[in-house]
Amino acid sequence: MSRPDSLIGSRMPRIDSGPKVRGEAKFTADIKLPRMLQAAVLRSPHAHAVIKSIDTSAAEKLPGVKAVVTGADTAGVKWGVFRYTQDQQLLPVDRVRYLGEEVAAVAAVSEEAAAEALSLIRVDYKPLPVITDVWQAMAEDAVLLHEDHPNNINVHVDIEVGEVEAGFAASHLVREDVFTAPEESYFMSEPYAVVANPLPDGSLELWMPNAAPHQKAKALCNALKMPLNKVIVRKVTIGGAFGGRSDVFPGEFITALLALKARRPVRLVYTREENTLATRQGHAMYTVVKTGVDKDGLVLARDITCYMDGGAYSSTGPIATSVPFLCMEQTYRLPAVRYNGYRIYTNKPVGGMIRVHGRAFAGGVDLQLDMLAEELGKDPLEVRLLNARRTGDTTPTGSKVQSCGLTDCIKEAGKASGWGDKYKKLPPWRGIGLGTNSVQTGFPLGIRGGSQATIKFNEDGGATVVSGVVDNGQGNDNMLVQIAAEVLGLDPGNIQLISADTEMTANDPGAYSMIATFAGGNAMLAAAEDARRQIFEVAAGAMGANPADLVAAGGKVFVAGSPDHGLPLAKVIRMALIQGRPVMGQGSFTPKVDQRREWLSNPQGQLSETFSFGASIAEVAVDPETGLVELLGLWLAQDCGRALNPMLVEGQFEGGATMGGVGGMLREEHVWTENGRCLNPTFLEYKVPLACDMPAMETIIVESLDPTGPFGAKEAGMSIAMSAAQAISAAVSNAIGKPVFDYPLTPDRVLKAIRGEGGAGE
Amino acid sequence: MSRPDSLIGSRMPRIDSGPKVRGEAKFTADIKLPRMLQAAVLRSPHAHAVIKSIDTSAAEKLPGVKAVVTGADTAGVKWGVFRYTQDQQLLPVDRVRYLGEEVAAVAAVSEEAAAEALSLIRVDYKPLPVITDVWQAMAEDAVLLHEDHPNNINVHVDIEVGEVEAGFAASHLVREDVFTAPEESYFMSEPYAVVANPLPDGSLELWMPNAAPHQKAKALCNALKMPLNKVIVRKVTIGGAFGGRSDVFPGEFITALLALKARRPVRLVYTREENTLATRQGHAMYTVVKTGVDKDGLVLARDITCYMDGGAYSSTGPIATSVPFLCMEQTYRLPAVRYNGYRIYTNKPVGGMIRVHGRAFAGGVDLQLDMLAEELGKDPLEVRLLNARRTGDTTPTGSKVQSCGLTDCIKEAGKASGWGDKYKKLPPWRGIGLGTNSVQTGFPLGIRGGSQATIKFNEDGGATVVSGVVDNGQGNDNMLVQIAAEVLGLDPGNIQLISADTEMTANDPGAYSMIATFAGGNAMLAAAEDARRQIFEVAAGAMGANPADLVAAGGKVFVAGSPDHGLPLAKVIRMALIQGRPVMGQGSFTPKVDQRREWLSNPQGQLSETFSFGASIAEVAVDPETGLVELLGLWLAQDCGRALNPMLVEGQFEGGATMGGVGGMLREEHVWTENGRCLNPTFLEYKVPLACDMPAMETIIVESLDPTGPFGAKEAGMSIAMSAAQAISAAVSNAIGKPVFDYPLTPDRVLKAIRGEGGAGE
Repeated sequence: MSRPDSLIGSRMPRIDSGPKVRGEAKFTADIKLPRMLQAAVLRSPHAHAVIKSIDTSAAEKLPGVKAVVTGADTAGVKWGVFRYTQDQQLLPVDRVRYLGEEVAAVAAVSEEAAAEALSLIRVDYKPLPVITDVWQAMAEDAVLLHEDHPNNINVHVDIEVGEVEAGFAASHLVREDVFTAPEESYFMSEPYAVVANPLPDGSLELWMPNAAPHQKAKALCNALKMPLNKVIVRKVTIGGAFGGRSDVFPGEFITALLALKARRPVRLVYTREENTLATRQGHAMYTVVKTGVDKDGLVLARDITCYMDGGAYSSTGPIATSVPFLCMEQTYRLPAVRYNGYRIYTNKPVGGMIRVHGRAFAGGVDLQLDMLAEELGKDPLEVRLLNARRTGDTTPTGSKVQSCGLTDCIKEAGKASGWGDKYKKLPPWRGIGLGTNSVQTGFPLGIRGGSQATIKFNEDGGATVVSGVVDNGQGNDNMLVQIAAEVLGLDPGNIQLISADTEMTANDPGAYSMIATFAGGNAMLAAAEDARRQIFEVAAGAMGANPADLVAAGGKVFVAGSPDHGLPLAKVIRMALIQGRPVMGQGSFTPKVDQRREWLSNPQGQLSETFSFGASIAEVAVDPETGLVELLGLWLAQDCGRALNPMLVEGQFEGGATMGGVGGMLREEHVWTENGRCLNPTFLEYKVPLACDMPAMETIIVESLDPTGPFGAKEAGMSIAMSAAQAISAAVSNAIGKPVFDYPLTPDRVLKAIRGEGGAGE
Repeated sequence: MSRPDSLIGSRMPRIDSGPKVRGEAKFTADIKLPRMLQAAVLRSPHAHAVIKSIDTSAAEKLPGVKAVVTGADTAGVKWGVFRYTQDQQLLPVDRVRYLGEEVAAVAAVSEEAAAEALSLIRVDYKPLPVITDVWQAMAEDAVLLHEDHPNNINVHVDIEVGEVEAGFAASHLVREDVFTAPEESYFMSEPYAVVANPLPDGSLELWMPNAAPHQKAKALCNALKMPLNKVIVRKVTIGGAFGGRSDVFPGEFITALLALKARRPVRLVYTREENTLATRQGHAMYTVVKTGVDKDGLVLARDITCYMDGGAYSSTGPIATSVPFLCMEQTYRLPAVRYNGYRIYTNKPVGGMIRVHGRAFAGGVDLQLDMLAEELGKDPLEVRLLNARRTGDTTPTGSKVQSCGLTDCIKEAGKASGWGDKYKKLPPWRGIGLGTNSVQTGFPLGIRGGSQATIKFNEDGGATVVSGVVDNGQGNDNMLVQIAAEVLGLDPGNIQLISADTEMTANDPGAYSMIATFAGGNAMLAAAEDARRQIFEVAAGAMGANPADLVAAGGKVFVAGSPDHGLPLAKVIRMALIQGRPVMGQGSFTPKVDQRREWLSNPQGQLSETFSFGASIAEVAVDPETGLVELLGLWLAQDCGRALNPMLVEGQFEGGATMGGVGGMLREEHVWTENGRCLNPTFLEYKVPLACDMPAMETIIVESLDPTGPFGAKEAGMSIAMSAAQAISAAVSNAIGKPVFDYPLTPDRVLKAIRGEGGAGE
């Protein structure tokens, strides 16, 4: 598939490392433009209230204030991922639904003037009853957050495949358990920021951390009522996304409005508190899992009901309502399965997509398998192997699985961790646990089309590659250059990358739902192969060779086997120019998925062209006096199809295990007052794991060589983020000898479980 | 060729007018970047001297100074258009050759600090003899400006085709005359400026007024010893070029060096004086023209010798040495012709390309035909028609002429001006004169390859078109959008243009040598047709139609004749995305020319794929007391192939006649001291014509519909700039009843001619 000196599979240093380690990379908040104004946002102090009036007259008169906007400027423009989930006024006109919701904004010549202007805006509120949990929300007499949603139910996903009740009836053993988890946040290292700059030709250019510049531009052009080619999202260095930069946020809409009104560039930088509360968060969940197995542990039927606290608006939450189920149905073979997922409106910040889709769901499904295995006297690892998804299977909702290395992941992780010597053989208060998961690699989210790439050449043989893919930190920029360099036989330093700018690049779905390498990488591969074909045609003519015999490597084109007799690529490029057939590569890739399925209520058909699979094993020690969990080791195995760059894949594994496993399963949660105020929105109170909190991690790359992935590649890290969380949950329960149903596994919860207190749903 | 509602031939308002009339368009000097430094250049006070030493130590210590550069920083990097004309050290190490040449430069936090730093630099010069004219320069004992060029001859162009002496021998009448003209300048409304910004990834982005961003980047990457894809010339609004922004200038090299050294953005803005003297100027010329005709006035042989004052370095001057000859040989049928062109080094600023190639040459050739006609008792207009180039001809140096409307131009201008009622019938001191000319439309200047364009679409049906063509003010941006809009049936407002940025666009020869519409327009046409083909395929599938029957117009695709039953373009674009075949147009155009000819000494072969032709008629009144010429009327006829936008074509005709005709032939000249100091470098002393100086002009568009031009288009305005100058020269001589041999026709020269004083070469 590639030469011995291939870049594919090499630990090529990342092309973006230099500027980052030198501190020269520019993030959105670093952008300075001449005459740039500073924006600030007035936020609701009530979690639920009617806006009776807003008086901005004093603020407008303050010297240095150049623009003030309220809902009155926007005619209540609403946004939502789908047309039928457009429930959020980007600047509310008549009502606020969570504490911190945007009410007005100003742009002024300094941050101080902007802050003073905010203090001069008078808002007259009439408070409404505050709903802070799903049970309150679904009560018969509850006030409705959105009048057209009875019982405050935002979305109900209802899936049933196969004979579920017959499956339970035929089962040797059936368990039903409840698992819970509160909200968690992303805590990207970069706080959210936006810069908007109106251009003389009537365009508006914007910078912001984002996971999909083209999707962001599309949503913004609708909200701003501007043509799509006049709303330009520019490339900028991004400090993390993790599912939390996918939406359109009021912040970018507001900054755009202020810039258009003031006819000057405007910058808005969120505080850490604003970044936590006024972007998105992971949903709180209450999950009921019922599983029936035969006497070997083979699952015969499963029924899951999940209640998700969605906060005040839809955002990407309706999709997040089905994703935990989909990950589960991809991981295990299920002859019969039922799922009821409810997303409920409450007066809390908005729940969206997050790297670990549903701690209570994923952890519960896997932990319950352990409990069933234990009752059957089986090794949980063997039960996982028995139920594991295999290549060629079709999932319950109808996706064909074209490559699957899950069995190898489980076996390799088991071997590396010494599972056989540890399970049930560890000293007291020590435990080992296994988690498995799968994610879609190329999940279209209702987005039209795939990714497009082009490649142009300079006379000196250097290339410029163009792709809409964005890099949020995971290394996508490097992925694009590495693929192009491999195909063209160029040094990566000879390739200039243009990416993530909606004016300069063609359509791309974005770097979320694990699609960047699969779609964007494949598009770049196609463009590079197209360019190489043209190069070989010109070179073959000059060399009297057959194009099919040519190889591009080391900046030269030569007949295979004769690397010393080639033409320099620069020479071929110049010959092509002179011959009037300049080399210009072009490629696109659109994942083969069922575009018409009804996502929100009943997903069916090919969900994603392919899927990645992972298995993690955790070993822990629990202090029985304090409930504190010490993580002793993590073994992380994933089928990423092909590791284009093992160094980057390992980084994704380790990052996934840190955020999803240690952060998600051991530490992170939000705490709320009954008035809807978050008590821990900053790094001071909300403790994300640091490098020093991590144990030694062993990364195991399983390569299934996907038939359509670029060089066989799929996705790296997501299945680890999920399965590491599940593994830790299983390991802690194994250590204390009892399941723990409530996450994250903070000392108080573990101690309660040890003492036999608390439990599911409390 | 196009629909009745076609944009082609319409007076579509220019897309760039809005920002310009609102004062929002940003020229290079308007660019502000954070931490940007201001640069200033120390210039030689001597026209010729050895640099013994440069001491910058005091300047470097001045607070606020961030970088100082001299020739010592550049190892004497030399530049020239061709490898064998690389005679200019971009920062001289050991010698200065004209007064105002760059010696050192500084970048500081303010213009004041930069100016103060310059005053602290000590340069020790040893003056050398100053050469200010070509006769001094060619003298046996003259000091050589460049040791490897005997007699200070920079270039000698030597062309001989046919039996020249036999032609003269067979002639009924032979004349030999000498015509002269001093230097002239461009006086663009925008002074030259450069901004250079080093980027974190090691690239350097630059803005400057330029006529060919890709050629500028290529030259700069060589000078800076950087890869081509790391030297990025960005798009910026440009206030005129006229041949004077084509080279690489020390200013951009210096600004780049300062920025790289300071690791900060640097801005350099030239004063008007620097813009005149330290960029380029038109050559002073001494031209000997000898023509033999038969008794009807048919030219049988011609011999021209031209001495051009090239100033201190080559620049584009070696090309300018053959261009006046080439224009002449294209215009008239010549069975036998000889040309000797000498470009001579002197201690004056550098001569380069300019809109009117050789006043003394063009005016002389045409005026001499009048003199011959007069002696033969023929009407000069009839003599022009007799000798005029026709479609299908081959020029002496070997170019096939594929379209030529010269005869129509002469006839139409004659009719409109009332030539028949005026020639020899005007009152005393009134005169009428005719000039004709031709220029290459798609002259490659040794540049590899043609132009490339791409088109991408947004989901809302808007398009983004990408081209390397630059707009210097002539309307190229509009030309690109107008062509794409026509082919795609889109409103021009739905098209976003990316152009003139070397990172974002593929190769393009530049907007000089009249190639932009022919090459860039053809590339855009090809890209738009490629996109339309893809659009029709998708639409035909959805409509059950034959792609060949479809039409794109009004933002819709429909079967020809049924505009009410079409699919909106946006819908077709979305269908294509969903079907996994996104629409992406791609096109290139490379003029068919002989790429291997030896340009400098003996041009041969197909010089340009096509040529434009023009004829101008001027009517003047001369005040016999003062010699002042009053221009009474101008009739401007040009074969531009096809007027894509008559409003823009007329603008080019009028601008050409103003600059070339009135400025070039009546007013503009530089005056020098014997020490090589220019006495009139600013608007105060050098009087360019204003709108109020222009007579009524009648523009006559002749459309020959070139077989390969886009929609038949060639070039607009250049043949007018040249022929208007020739017409005015002829009209003045006609008015005073004697030829005037020395240009421009300022009152003193006209008065001398009236009085029978002076004359050729004095």
